[in-house]
Amino acid sequence: MSQTKFLLSEAQIPTTWYNVVADLPKPLDPMLHPGTREPITPADLEPLFPAELIAQEFSTDREVDIPGAVIDVYQQWRPSPLVRARRLEKALDTPARIYFKNEGVSPAGSHKPNTAIPQAYYNKQAGVERLTTETGAGQWGSSLSLACQYFGLVCEVYMVKVSYQQKPYRRGLMETFGASVTASPSELTEAGRAALAADPNSPGSLGLAISEAVEAAVKSGGTAKYALGSVLNHVLMHQTIMGKEALLQMELAEDYPDIVIGAAGGGSNFGGLALPFLGEQMRGGRSVRAIAVEPSSCPTLTKGTFEYDFGDTAGMTPLTKMHTLGHDFVPPSIHAGGLRYHGMSPIISQLKELDLLEARAVPQTACFEAGVTFARNEGIVPAPESTHAVRAAIDEALACKESGESKSILFSLSGHGHFDMQAYIDYFAGKLKD
Amino acid sequence: MSQTKFLLSEAQIPTTWYNVVADLPKPLDPMLHPGTREPITPADLEPLFPAELIAQEFSTDREVDIPGAVIDVYQQWRPSPLVRARRLEKALDTPARIYFKNEGVSPAGSHKPNTAIPQAYYNKQAGVERLTTETGAGQWGSSLSLACQYFGLVCEVYMVKVSYQQKPYRRGLMETFGASVTASPSELTEAGRAALAADPNSPGSLGLAISEAVEAAVKSGGTAKYALGSVLNHVLMHQTIMGKEALLQMELAEDYPDIVIGAAGGGSNFGGLALPFLGEQMRGGRSVRAIAVEPSSCPTLTKGTFEYDFGDTAGMTPLTKMHTLGHDFVPPSIHAGGLRYHGMSPIISQLKELDLLEARAVPQTACFEAGVTFARNEGIVPAPESTHAVRAAIDEALACKESGESKSILFSLSGHGHFDMQAYIDYFAGKLKD
Repeated sequence: MSQTKFLLSEAQIPTTWYNVVADLPKPLDPMLHPGTREPITPADLEPLFPAELIAQEFSTDREVDIPGAVIDVYQQWRPSPLVRARRLEKALDTPARIYFKNEGVSPAGSHKPNTAIPQAYYNKQAGVERLTTETGAGQWGSSLSLACQYFGLVCEVYMVKVSYQQKPYRRGLMETFGASVTASPSELTEAGRAALAADPNSPGSLGLAISEAVEAAVKSGGTAKYALGSVLNHVLMHQTIMGKEALLQMELAEDYPDIVIGAAGGGSNFGGLALPFLGEQMRGGRSVRAIAVEPSSCPTLTKGTFEYDFGDTAGMTPLTKMHTLGHDFVPPSIHAGGLRYHGMSPIISQLKELDLLEARAVPQTACFEAGVTFARNEGIVPAPESTHAVRAAIDEALACKESGESKSILFSLSGHGHFDMQAYIDYFAGKLKD
Repeated sequence: MSQTKFLLSEAQIPTTWYNVVADLPKPLDPMLHPGTREPITPADLEPLFPAELIAQEFSTDREVDIPGAVIDVYQQWRPSPLVRARRLEKALDTPARIYFKNEGVSPAGSHKPNTAIPQAYYNKQAGVERLTTETGAGQWGSSLSLACQYFGLVCEVYMVKVSYQQKPYRRGLMETFGASVTASPSELTEAGRAALAADPNSPGSLGLAISEAVEAAVKSGGTAKYALGSVLNHVLMHQTIMGKEALLQMELAEDYPDIVIGAAGGGSNFGGLALPFLGEQMRGGRSVRAIAVEPSSCPTLTKGTFEYDFGDTAGMTPLTKMHTLGHDFVPPSIHAGGLRYHGMSPIISQLKELDLLEARAVPQTACFEAGVTFARNEGIVPAPESTHAVRAAIDEALACKESGESKSILFSLSGHGHFDMQAYIDYFAGKLKD
């Protein structure tokens, strides 16, 4: 009986988030105001976010306290398990040691509640009544729905239309958690109406849904604010609870990862796991290979350019320096809806420019093949987004088999695929395109 | 920060199952052969089950060893968490302490793998190549699918037609785990063809699907055996790992349940949690109120008679003394497919006759109402089956509020509802009937 799960007690939930900005060898370029193109100030963000989240967005403190009320909620599922994928290792016949951080145990089934909970909390503290947001696959929307429910806020979700159609049960989950859900593009906003005028059959995109949610908040007269599920500094910071726990859990396992892997859409899942390890490295500790995995149909880091661009389609958000495919890029309707974003977190983009991480693009059928192998050995069906990390982890493990090296591989199983079974059914039916 | 989850380490996974037969104040009546109506012998069961499972079915040993290979698999998710439902308690404003055993963390999302894994293991050891089985909601079928995958067996699942149609994603899950799935009644067996001849639109039932699976095994010439997901003594015994863990976890919580609650379809979920506590009581230890909760549309324990009846519709199985609505009873198509069974485990039936447990029937809309309350406070959407236990737990907690008593309530959250969102969508749309 060899140990499989490396668990921490609730008393070991980290009490601070890690802010990688404090350790970056080159500071981030400032966000620019979409009108003036001057660096934005905290005041510029007030229509969108409460003061505390704005302060976190600009913070250069290395560690930021997690409020007790947030930890109280985290306790429902955190610390999440770090699992040694022993059956998978055996099936691959690899000398590698494969670990995964299982964020699928959260209420929404992914890592997203890690930031939804504090975002709802800080908004409630600031007297906000309503939160608007966008969602792709629905992971973020269901997370914010529950967070709003917990803190007594109304939640309005603009869901990318292709996901809204493909995933009625994700929608059902958001409604069970108490949110109202609208397909984007919608008739409720100017941005939505413009998109529908241009293409009545638009499948939507995360960028466009962001435009709609931002517009709804800005025009609320202050009762509503907006919440973003990835990309921004404060979001990545909230997600570092994954990596901070994993650092402790790798100690329990008496191991340390040679390679850390995560799927990257906006970058918060990858960053949440990898940044605390990269922080160790940047402060002179052990080094790791950090691999961000993206879909080859939306290759932001591997094929995008590093420049200032809008976060949304309509050009309402600040301009950020990041890897981007262009804010009007509409990715194909792949099943990994959460990875269909034209841009990338400025932090992850900067780390890529500094050669502190590797980026890799993979096609979706290869990802589902890896997802099925994982499910048949570890008993967990990965979310389509997470299969990207599984693919890379398996490839690295197979490279170890080839070379005879016994490396330690850690990846983020960012979510389960219980609401994505149609994707697997399509995969088995040979209907998926790369 | 008050403790929410009571976790055990993998080293604390119980190494034996508990066999309540050893402690029953009155022995079970023997099963009878369907042809001769004489007590059956172990040899009579050989066409269906491997020798080791037959031995367990007849065993009167109080503790039965769990094989190491089974514990190795259990480690992927066991021990499952015992959770204090603190937010729910607060929302109900009750002085009661509510705990739930979360079996939704398993690979199939329910308690069913607790017995699927050992059943597949013992069949593999006996040289069996194929397992046939039935499934209602799909929880059992997906559990056995994975178990067969792990031990290298082919898995053939007969799925009750109404569930097959309502739950394509459960079917997808079984196929992802490597099984083949057929809607029952089917054209593949005599029992299925007879049912279709009588009613081409039959929604099917667990009893009928059992007939089909049993027939397919019996006619295989020995290469296939049959696996049952509930009712039988050995199945309830495998499930006692839940209650054995819960006994240890209640100690961690420095508490002991006054009331233990579980949903009862065939009885293995309820029994798995309650029997170890009832065993303590029967051996002179602390007493508990054990409440088995069933749907009012399939009221086996509350309205059925205690007599010899067949386990299946076609009358191929042994006759067992149990609470039954009659083996030709076809329950309405409620969403809690796993509770649509005409009979009840002989062990649970006997305990009911001895007044060692209470039975309660609840209508489905009241169950979904409770399920939504639970989801909005604890972040977990319960399976429709599990909402029956949630309903009873909430009712007991509300009774405590009324009386001012601070009781300790423990219930089995037997599974999550990720594959049952249509039921919640129908509930919100006012489409459910009681």
